[in-house]
Amino acid sequence: MGIVLGPTQYGKAECRLVRIVRDTQRHEIRDLNVSTALRGDFAAAHISGDQSRVLPTDTQKNTVYAFAKSHGVGEPEEFGLLLGRHFVAGTESVESARIAIEEFGWDRIGEHDHSFVRRGQEVRTAVVTVSGSDEWVVSGLADLVVLKSTGSEFAGFLVDEYTTLPETRDRVLATALTVQWRYAHIEVDWAPAYDDVRRLLLRAFAETHSFALQQSLYAMGSAVLEARPEIVEVRLVAPNKHHFAVDLAPFGLDNPGEIFHAADRPYGLIEATVTRDDAPDPGPAWL
Amino acid sequence: MGIVLGPTQYGKAECRLVRIVRDTQRHEIRDLNVSTALRGDFAAAHISGDQSRVLPTDTQKNTVYAFAKSHGVGEPEEFGLLLGRHFVAGTESVESARIAIEEFGWDRIGEHDHSFVRRGQEVRTAVVTVSGSDEWVVSGLADLVVLKSTGSEFAGFLVDEYTTLPETRDRVLATALTVQWRYAHIEVDWAPAYDDVRRLLLRAFAETHSFALQQSLYAMGSAVLEARPEIVEVRLVAPNKHHFAVDLAPFGLDNPGEIFHAADRPYGLIEATVTRDDAPDPGPAWL
Amino acid sequence: MGIVLGPTQYGKAECRLVRIVRDTQRHEIRDLNVSTALRGDFAAAHISGDQSRVLPTDTQKNTVYAFAKSHGVGEPEEFGLLLGRHFVAGTESVESARIAIEEFGWDRIGEHDHSFVRRGQEVRTAVVTVSGSDEWVVSGLADLVVLKSTGSEFAGFLVDEYTTLPETRDRVLATALTVQWRYAHIEVDWAPAYDDVRRLLLRAFAETHSFALQQSLYAMGSAVLEARPEIVEVRLVAPNKHHFAVDLAPFGLDNPGEIFHAADRPYGLIEATVTRDDAPDPGPAWL
Amino acid sequence: MGIVLGPTQYGKAECRLVRIVRDTQRHEIRDLNVSTALRGDFAAAHISGDQSRVLPTDTQKNTVYAFAKSHGVGEPEEFGLLLGRHFVAGTESVESARIAIEEFGWDRIGEHDHSFVRRGQEVRTAVVTVSGSDEWVVSGLADLVVLKSTGSEFAGFLVDEYTTLPETRDRVLATALTVQWRYAHIEVDWAPAYDDVRRLLLRAFAETHSFALQQSLYAMGSAVLEARPEIVEVRLVAPNKHHFAVDLAPFGLDNPGEIFHAADRPYGLIEATVTRDDAPDPGPAWL
Repeated sequence: MGIVLGPTQYGKAECRLVRIVRDTQRHEIRDLNVSTALRGDFAAAHISGDQSRVLPTDTQKNTVYAFAKSHGVGEPEEFGLLLGRHFVAGTESVESARIAIEEFGWDRIGEHDHSFVRRGQEVRTAVVTVSGSDEWVVSGLADLVVLKSTGSEFAGFLVDEYTTLPETRDRVLATALTVQWRYAHIEVDWAPAYDDVRRLLLRAFAETHSFALQQSLYAMGSAVLEARPEIVEVRLVAPNKHHFAVDLAPFGLDNPGEIFHAADRPYGLIEATVTRDDAPDPGPAWL
Repeated sequence: MGIVLGPTQYGKAECRLVRIVRDTQRHEIRDLNVSTALRGDFAAAHISGDQSRVLPTDTQKNTVYAFAKSHGVGEPEEFGLLLGRHFVAGTESVESARIAIEEFGWDRIGEHDHSFVRRGQEVRTAVVTVSGSDEWVVSGLADLVVLKSTGSEFAGFLVDEYTTLPETRDRVLATALTVQWRYAHIEVDWAPAYDDVRRLLLRAFAETHSFALQQSLYAMGSAVLEARPEIVEVRLVAPNKHHFAVDLAPFGLDNPGEIFHAADRPYGLIEATVTRDDAPDPGPAWL
Repeated sequence: MGIVLGPTQYGKAECRLVRIVRDTQRHEIRDLNVSTALRGDFAAAHISGDQSRVLPTDTQKNTVYAFAKSHGVGEPEEFGLLLGRHFVAGTESVESARIAIEEFGWDRIGEHDHSFVRRGQEVRTAVVTVSGSDEWVVSGLADLVVLKSTGSEFAGFLVDEYTTLPETRDRVLATALTVQWRYAHIEVDWAPAYDDVRRLLLRAFAETHSFALQQSLYAMGSAVLEARPEIVEVRLVAPNKHHFAVDLAPFGLDNPGEIFHAADRPYGLIEATVTRDDAPDPGPAWL
Repeated sequence: MGIVLGPTQYGKAECRLVRIVRDTQRHEIRDLNVSTALRGDFAAAHISGDQSRVLPTDTQKNTVYAFAKSHGVGEPEEFGLLLGRHFVAGTESVESARIAIEEFGWDRIGEHDHSFVRRGQEVRTAVVTVSGSDEWVVSGLADLVVLKSTGSEFAGFLVDEYTTLPETRDRVLATALTVQWRYAHIEVDWAPAYDDVRRLLLRAFAETHSFALQQSLYAMGSAVLEARPEIVEVRLVAPNKHHFAVDLAPFGLDNPGEIFHAADRPYGLIEATVTRDDAPDPGPAWL
């Protein structure tokens, strides 16, 4: 029996990069949170403290900022590919790189050239993995908070000795969606693809008469796969943000689906994957 | 020398109330976080544990939900007045009530009748104080995140032996605004007033060429007072969310206001009040 | 009618200062979060953007770090007094300064000379206000989480038409205490005073058979005033972290105060002040 | 090409369970955050909305609370095994169950029978997976914040064109550890094992002269494997909480490792696995 080093990775997390495009008086802004992680032959650093093959996380941070200037910041997927390729090609000890990016949206204040207001709490995400000449892109969004005030049921479920939940044919359904979708290749026009997936997800959520959050998730994932052939897999994580109808009977009032307490914890947590039956192997795309 | 009880208040904080208006198929939603606080003659509860004059916080919570059904939820200022008046009029030991409300906005998904998406991280606020027949309303907003990519300077400041900051004629100015404004009376059409104040604040932020965040705050407060005669005082709290230009010279790159690191801490914190010189006494409006 | 500037203050918030004392091989550590705020004649900065009387917040931050080296960091109250006096004495436009400090505790790992582990989530606080030659110190603690598993009742309370809460003679009482205490003067041995107040608060919480959280707060505040003549006022803020006994009857189980759900929101919020009847005027100590 | 459902799981997250043991006057307290997740044959729920094989998350929550009464709450690993076995054995559609538990520690206030104070921010964790008759236990801790004020270097690292970091032979090393360790079997005395692993981790952190955080992690993982034969794999995640020495030269002061700014973001993030070379296959233990 011996003790050995297993999988490792290291990098600089949460480089908060703001890129102002000021080629004209009408500025543009890209606001990113960039995390890098490198995998490769770093055993010596762990075992003997030998750093000679370790590119410092500080250098990785510098690279993020320098690339933002020298290459510009386009879509987060593109910027991630740029960075990932650089680390793999430029450093012998790096076998693969994983670049995870969050993008925060800004709207122009009116038609002002250089004044902006944050769009919302929703975040656009991209995770790029580069390993040798292989490249994977997983795009996504997080904290997209949606609610249906009707058109949601929960009934016909399994009942055991610990079940007290009554069936309901009309409830509030609310969640804060985290969705990620994997592309089959990288010949993608990222920005319109993102907008379209977001639109498809919202539409499927809205238009699905829901018998369970599970069903809404499957409908959302399917809608994306049906419309976008370059996407091969969709993963959805959805906390069921329970809205409990308040019992107003003690006060002589009925409550026909009008007054709810929005609870914090516990919450249902539903996770689902919708995929093509011929999807290529994900490799390290999700790691 | 004796030990005495000083000021006290108690109540139920953060009642998460969601009100669905379903009079027609086209639902409306109001999503509130309601906190109640009562002040009055509660010394016995503290000193001897006698609760006979204490209206339980659980009862206050019940009242929030029951009133949402029996009276509906209009604008947060109205709902706060309703609740405040009830507690003061209905309970002999309650001398005054302070109702603080946060409202979270929702947008309809497309034109769907009953599906919604959260609007953003920004929060609308209202603090209502009722004391006997006197009533005060302070409306506000929180977490309105804004940024100017140019049009902001910081120069000509006081220099002492600990000053190292260089002057700048062009910097990024960003903040997360918390603004509250006090009304002289309650004969106000709350929703359009809110929308207008928000618009005025954004416009003043955008259009002010800023020599300091202090100046932007004063311009915002003044713009509100100039346009809305029923508002007599504006209080603004603004963290200066520093965006530091990254030094790219080590990499042979210049950085003419394009690449920034958005820092977390420390941050400047600027607080200002803009008021009318004949503003009525605030009484307990801000307590 | 004119628009005028009201009260303002500005400063650098949350300077995260770690001071290692390495005079001997046995290191000591002080881990602070320092916020400065200056008040004075800064109208020109707001109204015309003239910064000539404004000491930059960046300078204030530099001063915090430089003073930590040149004067050392003793107790937070002392460090706050040092900084406050400096800003008021050294800058003509500064009429008063408010220094707010949080201190995070560390324990030594075993008896190791230079390795430490964070003590807990609890925070020691100090707020120092210097105005000309007047000085006020308010010490405190935040996030001291305590719980009684019995010895707490809630009964005999006021009942109105919205009251549904049953009386209880045995409940869990839990809270996360924020307590601040004002000193009459600054001739205090800060560290033992802090330790003693913390001990007194915990003992009073533990030993009070509680008829309400209000009563526990008053007992805690009184215990401090009785034991420490240099303290003249205690302010306590205590969320009632509700622990609801779970109804296990549907599963054929009783629940004699054993199984609880710890709820998040809403929560009762109790605020109280306990003071001496001859306490000197607080001036700006609490602002 | 067809669209198919991939892996799914669902359950109730963050059941906040407090168990008071009051068999004698000297109460004990266990404070847990329990999350359940079930995997199995739930395709119908997603695809057609048929819930007939779905045990509601509400029922899972009820089970947590009922089991806490009927079986008691021992160590989190035991409670997780109890729950996991129940869901797998009791529900035909459930193929495997994953129970994740956080435990929050409490200390007695003095020697009081029923008054407690929260121990710290550190959290004990357990993740139990039950699949048919196979069972896996992964224990852990989170948010164990540690710091070395010296005895840490970072030098001899790889230098590329984006490297500006100077070498250092003496720096502050600080991190907030998340560590998980996998057991080869479940014949373990969980509480003393936990205490011992925690002690081993702290000692290895303290006693390792660190050439990199990587090395400290490996030393910690190895120390655990060397001492505890029943543990076969240790996974460590450690943000490098950078403490930057402040440049005090502009103020005529040197800074020989005394004054630091504790930064928030970005931070290095180091992840490592230390394992036995003959460790049994983890199966779904980490999923």
